[in-house]
Amino acid sequence: MKNISILGSTGSIGTQSLDVVRNNKGFKVVALSTNTNIELLEKQALEFKPKIVAVANEYKGKILKDRLKGHNIKVEIGMNGLISVATEQTADVVITSVVGMVGLLPTLEAIKCGKTIALANKETLVTAGEIVIEEARKEGVNIIPVDSEHSAIFQCLQSGKYEEIEKIILTASGGPFRGKNKQFLEKVTKEDALKHPNWSMGKKITIDSATLMNKGLEVIEAKWLFNIDVDMIDVVVHPQSIVHSMVEFRDGSIIAQMGAPDMKVPIQYALTYPDRLSNDVNKLKLTEVGTLSFEPPSTKDFPCLQLAIEAIKIGGTMPAVLNAVNEIAVDMFLNDKIRFLDIPCIIEKLMGLHKTIKKPSLEEIIQSDNWARNNAKSYLTR
Amino acid sequence: MKNISILGSTGSIGTQSLDVVRNNKGFKVVALSTNTNIELLEKQALEFKPKIVAVANEYKGKILKDRLKGHNIKVEIGMNGLISVATEQTADVVITSVVGMVGLLPTLEAIKCGKTIALANKETLVTAGEIVIEEARKEGVNIIPVDSEHSAIFQCLQSGKYEEIEKIILTASGGPFRGKNKQFLEKVTKEDALKHPNWSMGKKITIDSATLMNKGLEVIEAKWLFNIDVDMIDVVVHPQSIVHSMVEFRDGSIIAQMGAPDMKVPIQYALTYPDRLSNDVNKLKLTEVGTLSFEPPSTKDFPCLQLAIEAIKIGGTMPAVLNAVNEIAVDMFLNDKIRFLDIPCIIEKLMGLHKTIKKPSLEEIIQSDNWARNNAKSYLTR
Repeated sequence: MKNISILGSTGSIGTQSLDVVRNNKGFKVVALSTNTNIELLEKQALEFKPKIVAVANEYKGKILKDRLKGHNIKVEIGMNGLISVATEQTADVVITSVVGMVGLLPTLEAIKCGKTIALANKETLVTAGEIVIEEARKEGVNIIPVDSEHSAIFQCLQSGKYEEIEKIILTASGGPFRGKNKQFLEKVTKEDALKHPNWSMGKKITIDSATLMNKGLEVIEAKWLFNIDVDMIDVVVHPQSIVHSMVEFRDGSIIAQMGAPDMKVPIQYALTYPDRLSNDVNKLKLTEVGTLSFEPPSTKDFPCLQLAIEAIKIGGTMPAVLNAVNEIAVDMFLNDKIRFLDIPCIIEKLMGLHKTIKKPSLEEIIQSDNWARNNAKSYLTR
Repeated sequence: MKNISILGSTGSIGTQSLDVVRNNKGFKVVALSTNTNIELLEKQALEFKPKIVAVANEYKGKILKDRLKGHNIKVEIGMNGLISVATEQTADVVITSVVGMVGLLPTLEAIKCGKTIALANKETLVTAGEIVIEEARKEGVNIIPVDSEHSAIFQCLQSGKYEEIEKIILTASGGPFRGKNKQFLEKVTKEDALKHPNWSMGKKITIDSATLMNKGLEVIEAKWLFNIDVDMIDVVVHPQSIVHSMVEFRDGSIIAQMGAPDMKVPIQYALTYPDRLSNDVNKLKLTEVGTLSFEPPSTKDFPCLQLAIEAIKIGGTMPAVLNAVNEIAVDMFLNDKIRFLDIPCIIEKLMGLHKTIKKPSLEEIIQSDNWARNNAKSYLTR
C-alpha cells in the first residue's frame, strides 16, 4: 500500500491523479489541497477520507473547516497548510500538482521529509532547480516526473546509461497556433488560445502551450531533472502528440515513448514506478493514427521558447524572473488585459531589466520572483 | 578486450560486423568463415589475423588452405570447419551471420561452449527455436539479437518487465511491392524484387522482404527470443524503416527504438551490450525525415506472412518446413525458374503435405528440412 499526498488535488493533474487512485487498489490518499475550489475538495475529502486537507485561500479555508466538522479530517489553511499536506507523516509519495511558484516551498519541505516526489509542478524546478535537485540528492529522494514529456524521457533513459546520452528530444504539439506567423498571432483571442488540439489541461498551461513557453519551461525542467546541459536538449514539433519525447544515445539509437495523449499514463507510472500496471486508458493504435510528423519549432514567431533557453543559459535568478513575468502576463491575457504577443514582449523587457544573482539562495529566488511580478504588473497596468 | 568469432564474415552482416570491429578498439577477431567467397575471406584473414578461418565449400576451402600457407592461420573445411569457428576457444561472442539452415548446428555448438550469441541467422530460431532457447537457458548463455527489429525490441524491453509486456510490434518496410495487388505481383521480376527501398541486404533476405516472409520469420524469431505468445506479436507496415520496432506495455506506454536504417547500430549494440559506444553512423534527424507512417500489412496480397504465423502456431517441425521450402523457392525465383507468386503457393502446398512432428528432436527437424527441400525441388522442377 502506497500512501499518497496530493498538492493541488482539484486541478487537472490532481483530479486525474485521483482517477488513477480510484483505478488501483494499491494506493491510499492521506492528504489533499486546493487553492480555492473547496466545493470539489470537500467531495474529494468525503470520498477518500484523507487525514488532512489544506486550502491555500484563507477565506475559503475557513468555510471548508466548518463544513468538514465532525468528519475527523484536519483542515489547514494557507502556505502552512500546503506544507502540512506535503509533509504529512504517513505519506510515501507527494504529487505536486499545484500551478505556479506556490509549489516550491511545500515541495522542498516534502523532500526534506524524505518523501518521493511525483513532480507535476514545473515551476519548482524552473525557479529553483539547483536548490531542489541538490536537496533531493542530499536526502536520497526520487523525483519522478509526471509531465508526459519528462515521464517519456525518464522511461526512455532506462535503455541506456547517463554517460551514453547524446541528446534529449522534447516533443511539442505546437499548440493551436502551429504554423501561424506574427501577423496572425497579433489578433488571436484567449478563446483561440485555449483550444488545445490534443491535450485537455488547465488554462495557464494551455496558454503556455500556445506561446511555446510551456516547452521552454520543460527544457529548463529537463535540464535539472536529468542533469543535462541545455545544449543537449532539442525541441521538435510533433502535432499529433503521440511521441511524448525521446532520448538519443551516442550509438545513434533513439528511444521514444508513445501513447494516446492521456495524462493518466504518466501519472500512474510516477506512482507505480518501477512497475507498470494495467489500466483502462485508450490504447494507441498506430495504424489508426497513420502518420506522425516532425518539424522544427519556429522560434521567430514563438519567441517564448528561445527566451526560456536564454534564461536558463544565464542561470541564477533569471529563470525565476522569466517564470514570474510569464505567470503575470498569462493571467492578464486570460483577463483580456493584454494581447497574445505582449506576453513574450514583457518577458523579454523584464529579463533585460533584471540583475541576475548567481547561485541564489531560496530567499533571493523568492525576492527575484516578487520583483518580477511587481514590475510586470506595474508595466502592464500603466 | 572482447574476442569475436564470425560465422559468415563475407556476407552483408559479416562485412558490416567487421566494419564495426574496425571502428572499435575493444574487439579482436579470432575466427571467420565463408560459404564460397574465399577471395574476400583471404583479405579479411590477412587484415584481422584470426586464429582460424573456415570455408563451407570443400573445393574452395582447399584453394584457400594453399593460399594462406605460412600465415599461421588455421583453415578448416565444411560443417566441421564452421563448428570450429563457432567454438573457437578464445572467442567470447559468436556472430551468427550465415544465411539459412546451415547456421543451426554451429550456433548450438557455440551455445554448448558458453559463448554469447550475437544472432543474425534467423533460421536458427525459426527451425529449432525451442531447442536452441532451452539449450541457451541451460547454459546461461545470452542470445543478443542483431536483426534491427529484434535489437529494437531488446532495447525497448529495458523500459519494463517481462510480465508487463502487452504486445510486441514488429515494423516492416513493406518492401518494394508495398501497396501492390496480386495482379501486379504476378508479373514482377527478380530485378524488381531486389530493389529494397531502405535497406542494403543480401539477396535472399531482400526477396523475403518483398514477399513479407522475412517479417513472418521475424515473428517466429521474436516468439522464441522474447518467450512471447505469437498472438502478442503485431506486424505494422512502416515504409520509412525509421522505427525499427516497438514494445507496448500494459499501462499503455509504447516504447520504440528508432534510427537511420544502418545495420551497424544493432550489430555494434549486440557486441557492446549493455554499453552503448559512439560511432560514425549517420544520425537520424527526425525533422528531416518529416513523416513516419504506419499501416496494416496486406496478408491477402502477401500470404507469406500469414503462412509463417500459421506454421509457428502449428509448431513442431512445421516452421522448419516453411523455412526450407522458402529457401528453395527463393533460390529458384532468383534463378528465374519460378515466378514471384509461386513462392507462397509452393510453401502452402508443402505445409499441407507435411506431417508435423510435435516436440521434435534436432534430427527430426533436420529430416523435415530435408524432406521439404527435396519435395520442393521435385515439385518445382516437374
